[in-house]
Amino acid sequence: MKRFLEVKERKEVETLILSFAKKVRAIEEIPLSDALGRVLAEDVRSGVDVPPFDRATMDGFAVRASDTFYADEEQPAALRVVGAAHAGEPPKLEVRSGECVEIATGAPMPKGADAVVMVEFTELEGDEVRIYKAVAPGENVMAAGSDIKRGELVLKRGTPLRPRDLGVLAACGVSKIRVFKKPRVAVISTGNELLEPGEPLKPGKIYDVNSQTLCAAISESGGAPSFLGILRDDPDEILKALRHAVGKYEAVVVSGGTSAGASDIMYDVLEKLGDVLVYGVNIKPGKPFIFAVVDDKPVFGLPGNPTSALLTFSLFVAPFLRAVGGLPPHAGAKPTKVRATLSTPIFSEKGRHEYVFVKLVENDEGGVTATPLLKGSGAITTLASADGYVLVDAQTEIVEAGEEVEVTLITEKFI
Amino acid sequence: MKRFLEVKERKEVETLILSFAKKVRAIEEIPLSDALGRVLAEDVRSGVDVPPFDRATMDGFAVRASDTFYADEEQPAALRVVGAAHAGEPPKLEVRSGECVEIATGAPMPKGADAVVMVEFTELEGDEVRIYKAVAPGENVMAAGSDIKRGELVLKRGTPLRPRDLGVLAACGVSKIRVFKKPRVAVISTGNELLEPGEPLKPGKIYDVNSQTLCAAISESGGAPSFLGILRDDPDEILKALRHAVGKYEAVVVSGGTSAGASDIMYDVLEKLGDVLVYGVNIKPGKPFIFAVVDDKPVFGLPGNPTSALLTFSLFVAPFLRAVGGLPPHAGAKPTKVRATLSTPIFSEKGRHEYVFVKLVENDEGGVTATPLLKGSGAITTLASADGYVLVDAQTEIVEAGEEVEVTLITEKFI
Repeated sequence: MKRFLEVKERKEVETLILSFAKKVRAIEEIPLSDALGRVLAEDVRSGVDVPPFDRATMDGFAVRASDTFYADEEQPAALRVVGAAHAGEPPKLEVRSGECVEIATGAPMPKGADAVVMVEFTELEGDEVRIYKAVAPGENVMAAGSDIKRGELVLKRGTPLRPRDLGVLAACGVSKIRVFKKPRVAVISTGNELLEPGEPLKPGKIYDVNSQTLCAAISESGGAPSFLGILRDDPDEILKALRHAVGKYEAVVVSGGTSAGASDIMYDVLEKLGDVLVYGVNIKPGKPFIFAVVDDKPVFGLPGNPTSALLTFSLFVAPFLRAVGGLPPHAGAKPTKVRATLSTPIFSEKGRHEYVFVKLVENDEGGVTATPLLKGSGAITTLASADGYVLVDAQTEIVEAGEEVEVTLITEKFI
Repeated sequence: MKRFLEVKERKEVETLILSFAKKVRAIEEIPLSDALGRVLAEDVRSGVDVPPFDRATMDGFAVRASDTFYADEEQPAALRVVGAAHAGEPPKLEVRSGECVEIATGAPMPKGADAVVMVEFTELEGDEVRIYKAVAPGENVMAAGSDIKRGELVLKRGTPLRPRDLGVLAACGVSKIRVFKKPRVAVISTGNELLEPGEPLKPGKIYDVNSQTLCAAISESGGAPSFLGILRDDPDEILKALRHAVGKYEAVVVSGGTSAGASDIMYDVLEKLGDVLVYGVNIKPGKPFIFAVVDDKPVFGLPGNPTSALLTFSLFVAPFLRAVGGLPPHAGAKPTKVRATLSTPIFSEKGRHEYVFVKLVENDEGGVTATPLLKGSGAITTLASADGYVLVDAQTEIVEAGEEVEVTLITEKFI
């Protein structure tokens, strides 16, 4: 049996992989309507004032504020109505002293007017209106450029776009933007024992889990997954598929059969195709993780075990894909970690950082209790029911029940 | 000017609208590969055992555990190798006392064998293997059905599907599932002053913001938006468009021109088409919110002001769409509220619940300071830069600087 090249530290592997993100990163122009959740690849400055003109914010009468000074219910000011200003129409009228213009919310202020008296405080009779309340200059008017000035930097390169940001861009008249391209990621499962869900089960076979979980996890990390199928543990078949994949996609995620022999096949094939930079990380589960570079494209070789595959994905692949797409390292809201009291002891192997999946329950003391899930890393239900994990470092062999531990929450993005 | 029908309380409006979710809800069958973030509309029971057979979890030798008892480095047990078991192949061999089978991780256990000795603790010579370590029955074997039992309820109706849940379904061989259908929502903007972003700006015109923000917010709420365009403030045109929309979509979101006159047009048109159940809510901003039912389809009439539109959307439309899609009421991780110290006083109108947008900054005392954003509700930048809002209830006219306030965070989903 082939030995691991040199089992590396997790941090070292993370750093190494992230250093490839810039090489893979690309930029594309897309319409604003497709931009939710995408990340700006350029600074955006407004080409217009927002609003583009002095704009009435109430229905009423556009006036010279000084004409209304001292007006009140006892002594209303009287102004001559010289016309009406509607929303969406260019300003044509002018207001001189003693005059006013009937105005609708959103309409441009007529020349000469500097305030709007709300309709509630007026009384119209013929072409004369009585003003029962004084207004200050600028009252009920939104000045041109007061929201956004022409030339102002409205959004910075690197901003992940929320609905509100799309609103800011729309307000500036922007209809297309340059964003970081979603990395297209090929997904391949290998293993003689694997069947696609939906096929009838045969003796000795199990259903492929990784293609589903990994494609979904790639989507959550801002990538665009393509499942290329299940391959047999056959070096030639795998080599051909990987050569095709690196030619067509920005990255490849291949999950091995669950046997140690199968991970050796992956290593041999990747050595032939390019450079294997990582084969072995000192974590549990996930030790046989492979990272290789083939024709300048990153290839991630994940263990076949679904929990190990998804854990190594979240540690090494997700941050890489997020970096390529310009997203911050972690999805979702903070906090990503909570303190909890361990309910049962954890016994851990020395020499590897162990990820122990736990369930969290609020306890009577107002704190949180973490209970390790004991079905083992082979069980998909362990992962599905976990709220997070406790990381037991390489030097620790036992964590006692009752100890306080730090739990890293597994956060979901699309729910 | 038309008066509001009867200004309703926010809670009453929320409850009324949510009561329509069930009528709009529908179910569809989709492939597992499209199911990320969707919500199960059925309980799913496994049709198979997972794993389907007793499965080796290590490379080594499948043995009768009793044959290895008392074996150690000094006194190894010697067993005859009667064949090899590979992953993906049906079990053909049988292990009798004194015999063993070479086995790969993932391979089905041969008949008679009840444990696997890891290859590291063995030495092969010809067809005999020396076993240097005793194993207990079941060691390094994952028993059939130990992860999931055939017939077991694996996921409940109402579960939003995360990558891990898709893994559970795949493990059970499920390739298609029944989920709640995404509500298709028509989006219409109205206002003579509106231009689509990308068009050249004309005097008196502004760019339409709501179509972008509302379509994106509908996506975030689990709906499928279709933008039907910008309409003029013309009752006939609006009536025609709404009639078409309610015939084709599960819900309609129309945002009005910003003028009070425009919201009256919307009211009149909706009264003609169906039943206006809400016209006016005692909140600020967002008072002129309309909810109508036309041909059993909900129609949401939002104010034209972008901040008011997005706020009323998040209060009344988002929870409705999430309920239709079977999602929990709020997106994202907890906490959704934080306590903060107010930096400057808030003056609020009596009689309406006011939503004051704030920015949060960590302060020197280890707490959080909330600073109200003062550009006014008409400014799109106010909304874009807000971290959350303080809700000032209808009875409160002033909140002093230094008071502790509760800030509801605005959470984003897709970032």
